[in-house]
Amino acid sequence: MARKRDTPPGQVIFPAENLADELARNQRSISVAEFFEKNKHLLGFDSPVRGIITTVKEAIDNALDACEEAGVLPDIYLGIFRKEDDIFKVVVEDNGPGIVPDNIPFVFGKLLYGSRFHQIRQSRGQQGIGISAAVLYAQLTTGNPTMVISRCGAERPAYKLLIQIKTETNEPEILSRDEIQWDRTHGTRIEIEFKSSLTAKKRLIEYLRYTSVVNPHTRIRVELDGETMTFDRASEEPIIPPKAIKPHPHGVELGELKRMTAASTAPLREFLIEGFSRVGEKTADEIIKSSGIGAEQAVSSLNPKGLGHLHTAMQAANVPPPPAQQCLSPIGENLIKQGLEKEFQLDFISARTRPAAVYHGHPFIVEAALGWGGKLESEGTARIMRFANRVPLMYQQGACAITTSINSVNWRTYGIGQQGLPTGPLIILVHVASTNVPFTSESKDAVASIPEIEREITLALQDLGRDLKTFIQRRDRSRQTEERARAICSIIPEIAAKVAETLELPIPDTSPIEGQIMKRLVAKKKTIDGIVSISVSNYTSHAVDITLYCITTDDPRDANPAPVFVEQVGEDFSAVWQLRIPANDVWRTEYKGLGRGSIDIRGIDEKKKVVVDLDR
Amino acid sequence: MARKRDTPPGQVIFPAENLADELARNQRSISVAEFFEKNKHLLGFDSPVRGIITTVKEAIDNALDACEEAGVLPDIYLGIFRKEDDIFKVVVEDNGPGIVPDNIPFVFGKLLYGSRFHQIRQSRGQQGIGISAAVLYAQLTTGNPTMVISRCGAERPAYKLLIQIKTETNEPEILSRDEIQWDRTHGTRIEIEFKSSLTAKKRLIEYLRYTSVVNPHTRIRVELDGETMTFDRASEEPIIPPKAIKPHPHGVELGELKRMTAASTAPLREFLIEGFSRVGEKTADEIIKSSGIGAEQAVSSLNPKGLGHLHTAMQAANVPPPPAQQCLSPIGENLIKQGLEKEFQLDFISARTRPAAVYHGHPFIVEAALGWGGKLESEGTARIMRFANRVPLMYQQGACAITTSINSVNWRTYGIGQQGLPTGPLIILVHVASTNVPFTSESKDAVASIPEIEREITLALQDLGRDLKTFIQRRDRSRQTEERARAICSIIPEIAAKVAETLELPIPDTSPIEGQIMKRLVAKKKTIDGIVSISVSNYTSHAVDITLYCITTDDPRDANPAPVFVEQVGEDFSAVWQLRIPANDVWRTEYKGLGRGSIDIRGIDEKKKVVVDLDR
Repeated sequence: MARKRDTPPGQVIFPAENLADELARNQRSISVAEFFEKNKHLLGFDSPVRGIITTVKEAIDNALDACEEAGVLPDIYLGIFRKEDDIFKVVVEDNGPGIVPDNIPFVFGKLLYGSRFHQIRQSRGQQGIGISAAVLYAQLTTGNPTMVISRCGAERPAYKLLIQIKTETNEPEILSRDEIQWDRTHGTRIEIEFKSSLTAKKRLIEYLRYTSVVNPHTRIRVELDGETMTFDRASEEPIIPPKAIKPHPHGVELGELKRMTAASTAPLREFLIEGFSRVGEKTADEIIKSSGIGAEQAVSSLNPKGLGHLHTAMQAANVPPPPAQQCLSPIGENLIKQGLEKEFQLDFISARTRPAAVYHGHPFIVEAALGWGGKLESEGTARIMRFANRVPLMYQQGACAITTSINSVNWRTYGIGQQGLPTGPLIILVHVASTNVPFTSESKDAVASIPEIEREITLALQDLGRDLKTFIQRRDRSRQTEERARAICSIIPEIAAKVAETLELPIPDTSPIEGQIMKRLVAKKKTIDGIVSISVSNYTSHAVDITLYCITTDDPRDANPAPVFVEQVGEDFSAVWQLRIPANDVWRTEYKGLGRGSIDIRGIDEKKKVVVDLDR
Repeated sequence: MARKRDTPPGQVIFPAENLADELARNQRSISVAEFFEKNKHLLGFDSPVRGIITTVKEAIDNALDACEEAGVLPDIYLGIFRKEDDIFKVVVEDNGPGIVPDNIPFVFGKLLYGSRFHQIRQSRGQQGIGISAAVLYAQLTTGNPTMVISRCGAERPAYKLLIQIKTETNEPEILSRDEIQWDRTHGTRIEIEFKSSLTAKKRLIEYLRYTSVVNPHTRIRVELDGETMTFDRASEEPIIPPKAIKPHPHGVELGELKRMTAASTAPLREFLIEGFSRVGEKTADEIIKSSGIGAEQAVSSLNPKGLGHLHTAMQAANVPPPPAQQCLSPIGENLIKQGLEKEFQLDFISARTRPAAVYHGHPFIVEAALGWGGKLESEGTARIMRFANRVPLMYQQGACAITTSINSVNWRTYGIGQQGLPTGPLIILVHVASTNVPFTSESKDAVASIPEIEREITLALQDLGRDLKTFIQRRDRSRQTEERARAICSIIPEIAAKVAETLELPIPDTSPIEGQIMKRLVAKKKTIDGIVSISVSNYTSHAVDITLYCITTDDPRDANPAPVFVEQVGEDFSAVWQLRIPANDVWRTEYKGLGRGSIDIRGIDEKKKVVVDLDR
């Protein structure tokens, strides 16, 4: 590079002809694949440890989106196999609608290719980047192409393709394409090999568990480097896929409006009613009137000034918020509670789905839940579960608006300790669903700080905090009651003895009275929504070893925990569990059924047990 | 969308023909401009408040990079004008080499277009996204195009272009292109209008001040909505632009190596020596030997297995780290100290430039400085100044590896309080310079957590912490000494009186001795690098009102603070400052010059002043 280094500073004689031209020769266009290959950390591929979680997440997001779109209950297989020291193969197979063979290379081999970018509705993937980035990462770290099998229905053949990405152009390269025999009638399978490590295995399993909590209609079967596990459904109801809506007049920027009008042949009134959501005749007339533009003027003929007036009028008009019910798919309070209960067996749980709200014209819904006790650790700060559009957020907790909002709540008001985050055996779940979740980075790890969203999260948490406070107060009261009962029971025998002595009668057996007051060991059975649950609470001060019998017309063989013995006699099953229950502990099992039949407990003094069947 | 909602869940009869085809029809390619328009927060355009800082930052980054490339001292003009309520015009003009007219539309009107993406060397901009994103944001929020004027030398005409971006294709649209008269001989001017707000004006000025600290060779003149200010040079030495280097053999992924070999016609030995930095004949032979491949085999003919062996051999080979001196441009300890001193007039300052280190094959250098006292607030946590490649990082302090590293140091060891961050009148500057700074997001707000980088930052800070500890201990000692001196002075008159009484002599005047011990009011003048600085320290226990006189051949009219009166007599200037200095306070002024002449103080007892001229 010709540069005059000898001229005194401040009096540079400028070598203009050379330098500007020389610089110009170096200037060129960069493909988006080159960009993301170099900046792979922006997409969550910063390290081999994280790469595996990101890849699994992208593939499962796609599988769930596809199944949802088809209205089927997702049945997903995930396989992770170590091929060499640090080379892993990840396989994800779904029962979605499949991808037509001509589009497969683009879906997996081109970044920024997809169907959901321009649709205003909630979905996991949106940009058409994620899975192609995984393919890019695979070819970067191993040089290996990615295999995709897909089939679009029983009457169509399945295709198997080997794909890689031409990084310089961001175009797919098809290495092979074959029609094959495949036992699935519809669905997609991807096999991808990359440099990785299973150091973060615990986090990977956590990701799968969390996914299962907020997608209770999903079953994921997992083979993880020799181990197998299943995350089963908590609900048999497929999700109704959200529908795309039109843009909201309050969410449109002037430049965007300019493009929309330039591309339209409609007159103003029609343009407003047809092009935007929540704009009916009345709203259209209001906008037209305050804009000072004729209702029948073709919008493509508007000059910059007219456009400015139209934009101002649209912003000022009184338009109802976007139709969130249609384009968003919240999980719902009941399913959130079921999902959390399944994982943590909580003493208390409460959930809220907030009404829809809007930021920058994008509708969103915040859902939150608080759980207390159960299997949660009683020490340390609360466990936080963050979700956006039903996807768990696994990284950058500190940078997330959800965390900021949790910190901003004064938890002490609700009787809970706080060190920044609240403390105790507490779990906090927050789900942000939106047509456009504002992530802090393209790796989708954290929700950006948007005041409207933070406000909704805070309101939901405060509301739940009040529920929790009530629970904790009631629990403290019932502890008091129990202590009083204990005190009474401890003097009943003495009173009985004294009274007997005074009346010169034999000392009566007081234990039934004590039993009534103390309810020493309580077995309960109840059935809700086809799930029979049996619990045994040990209120004694000692561990007990007992046998639980259940005679029922339901099949308890799949109970969790399973019985040690099951016998079928005609239509009846007879099941046996052998239990050791520590003092003040509760044991539970669950199986599918109608709850007919009876239970009983052996191995403990008759007077020290109470059996309650809530199904009778 | 045809969907079978009536079939029982779990037994979906699949509408395959319709759905997969229907989905396929919606699939399309998304332009990178559409992507970043929708996700503008990823580039730092989340809000109008922030948009203005991001735009200024991108334009100034480009200006500085261009000037550096040309080896000129940057002279940058920044104008910010309110056009309407929330519409601002930002003007940035530089004295760089200019951009040839045919390239202007691409540089400003196409994302991912630039000259530095494939070059392995330190630069502020790299991706060719920033300034085009600002143009995109401008047209989105106002619909207005961006104006660019550029000229590549005195003998060439200047061109003025009006540009916008066709979002759907990410291609520039030229609205006009004219040859114009322009008084600059070389440079570029951009005028850009967008929706914004000056709410973050303080942060904007902070950004400019910080930029000035780490770019001491730069002058920035600012017109900010009616106010004017100048951030002047602390150094007249232009930066030697870093030179691009070849990739380092340890930093190449297998997939990348595959592409490089496929594109090469060279035999293995030549490929290694010519294609990589730090690979000489000896290293090449070592790699060839352990790979088991022939030295003369054409690399394009290598099969996947051979490539794997070559990659392993390259990773294992003993190669010196990349030549960081050549491709990186650290600021240097002296310039960092000068920059900080200029802004904060510190009592203590120490800086370190660490030796070059490497992460994932990318060379980097960490620089850090600690300042104490002076104009810093003595309460609260330390002030943190974060920089990457000479660019201040203004957002997401909490998510940055620099902050994490500062927190990880045990500051109490160095006698400094700590609440997560250290506390007290402390400033911490950290600069990470690299050929590839790993940012957490494309908005370049925070450095990602890379263990190698965090380690270097921690080492630099620990080293500086030890310096600060020594200073604080010494200061504590000198405080003790002063207290002792005070104690002695307070009894000197009594001793003198006693001695005089005993010897039957008149009581002597002890004030000169006290003066010598206490140095009541000390005025100092010193000149370094053409900057004359005068300080007056008030060690008395009362505020003093004094007049400072300076007779000099330098022109002190631009002194900061300025004199209340200046008179020129022949070649001499006579300047007067009127000062009120609180007890234990220091007053300072500075002006350009050689430091000839003399100073004096009036308004205080002769015996209570000491005048020191370090220039004599």
